[in-house]
Amino acid sequence: MELWFTENHTDSVRFSIKIKRHLFSEQSEFQKIDVLESEEFGRMLVLDGYLMLTEKDEYIYHEMITHVPLSVNPDIKRVLVIGGGDGGAVRELCRFRNVEHIDMVEIDKRVVEVCREYLQKTACSLDDPRVHLYYEDGLKFVRRAENEYDLIIVDSTDPFGPGEGLFTKEFYGNCYKALNENGILVNQHESTFYNEYAKAMKRAHSRIKSFFPIALVYQAHIPTYPSGHWLFGFASKKFHPVNDQNAEWWVEQGLKTGYYNRFIHSGSFALAQNVRDVLRETKEEGAK
Amino acid sequence: MELWFTENHTDSVRFSIKIKRHLFSEQSEFQKIDVLESEEFGRMLVLDGYLMLTEKDEYIYHEMITHVPLSVNPDIKRVLVIGGGDGGAVRELCRFRNVEHIDMVEIDKRVVEVCREYLQKTACSLDDPRVHLYYEDGLKFVRRAENEYDLIIVDSTDPFGPGEGLFTKEFYGNCYKALNENGILVNQHESTFYNEYAKAMKRAHSRIKSFFPIALVYQAHIPTYPSGHWLFGFASKKFHPVNDQNAEWWVEQGLKTGYYNRFIHSGSFALAQNVRDVLRETKEEGAK
Repeated sequence: MELWFTENHTDSVRFSIKIKRHLFSEQSEFQKIDVLESEEFGRMLVLDGYLMLTEKDEYIYHEMITHVPLSVNPDIKRVLVIGGGDGGAVRELCRFRNVEHIDMVEIDKRVVEVCREYLQKTACSLDDPRVHLYYEDGLKFVRRAENEYDLIIVDSTDPFGPGEGLFTKEFYGNCYKALNENGILVNQHESTFYNEYAKAMKRAHSRIKSFFPIALVYQAHIPTYPSGHWLFGFASKKFHPVNDQNAEWWVEQGLKTGYYNRFIHSGSFALAQNVRDVLRETKEEGAK
Repeated sequence: MELWFTENHTDSVRFSIKIKRHLFSEQSEFQKIDVLESEEFGRMLVLDGYLMLTEKDEYIYHEMITHVPLSVNPDIKRVLVIGGGDGGAVRELCRFRNVEHIDMVEIDKRVVEVCREYLQKTACSLDDPRVHLYYEDGLKFVRRAENEYDLIIVDSTDPFGPGEGLFTKEFYGNCYKALNENGILVNQHESTFYNEYAKAMKRAHSRIKSFFPIALVYQAHIPTYPSGHWLFGFASKKFHPVNDQNAEWWVEQGLKTGYYNRFIHSGSFALAQNVRDVLRETKEEGAK
């Protein structure tokens, strides 16, 4: 018997991976959670049918969502991670000695429990004493915070299903408030190649721009995401992601990485012309 | 009825595109040629079952294989294109007024004829008076040339089937000889994510390094190629692709592009850490 996992990237584009074993399946309160094992990509986490991570390429996403802001402000001490139930972002954050306190807010406790059991490569640092887990809606959590964090990482699913609230104006406004004067907001920012994702990207970007004086976009090649080209948002009250890059400091940390390095840091902000065009068309949405 | 084109990126990874019409199919002397039409990607050229180009994303490959070397040496006048039967590389070259003479050597005349008929978006400049077409083996053509070209572009298929000879040591040595003292060699360089392609990439890179004093690798995001992350080789007798970039000159040309711009030029040489590691492992192969 052959078992194949297929994700529809659009109605007429499919990406399929041959599966060795279907390790886990459950409908949680919020979403369908599946864990699959494959020859090519190792273990894979699937939420509501969308591939969230594979053991083979998750390092790209998790390094890029963390090492970029850390290299810009080496004084980051207090971090809020919203989403990220697989633990990959937290794992990377815990490699930095300057990080003193991480609040992680994941709406779906079952995702964390399942990843602890089946995806130890990403979930391995969730018991670090600096990490504080909250199982609640990130949208509500961030409403209560004021001037508290140096960095907020929004490691969300796509803006449909449980991740929807994490792409709203109210949410970005509350993130601004929850950050201190050095604050940086990094979020997964969808992609521009397929229309459905491009619309979500533009909407997110215009909303973020209406709150933050600095709002740029950077990219990574993530082979298992639709089109393989994925974007991250870098929004900040003060720091410029390229001009303020502290490459020397990052090198001194001696961290072994698979994707991030001091060259790709600025390279990832060099966007293709059509991505630049799309971003330029994006107007700030409404007033603050 | 639903019609789907599927390419196996590995034995256990498949990429599928829904097809509206199968426009053309023929077994030529060298390979199986198919032209398909799809909703998402427009028309597509398939050789021996491998997707060569789609109308939606071919500009990425063709801009990156041409604008990068042209921006490094604006005095490029004589160009040799090996392969590239679809005409995409020639189309981009013809946009530069400094280019005076283009020899294009394609082993399979039928590919050119089929692209002229079905893929006019890429084949549109093949009748430019600067373009001289030769239907023969690029490997043999380049043996006869000496000190003749400013730029050689190897726009080949993968190193199996008719493209195989274009990845040999003999071929790269002859390219070196065919180039003048300002010469630049750019070639499609496969990818590192899947093992089969990574092996081909390493072999090609070590061979090129044994002839050229400058041999670097740059990347592009090409959504329809395996892993979406594709590499190009930049080898040169004199010019450094980043230090010698003439961004001002390129901007002055006023060329509208979809992917290439003066920022992504250097950004494309900022490679992921594991690609850098693979390249560092690559030793020069044998003597000259």
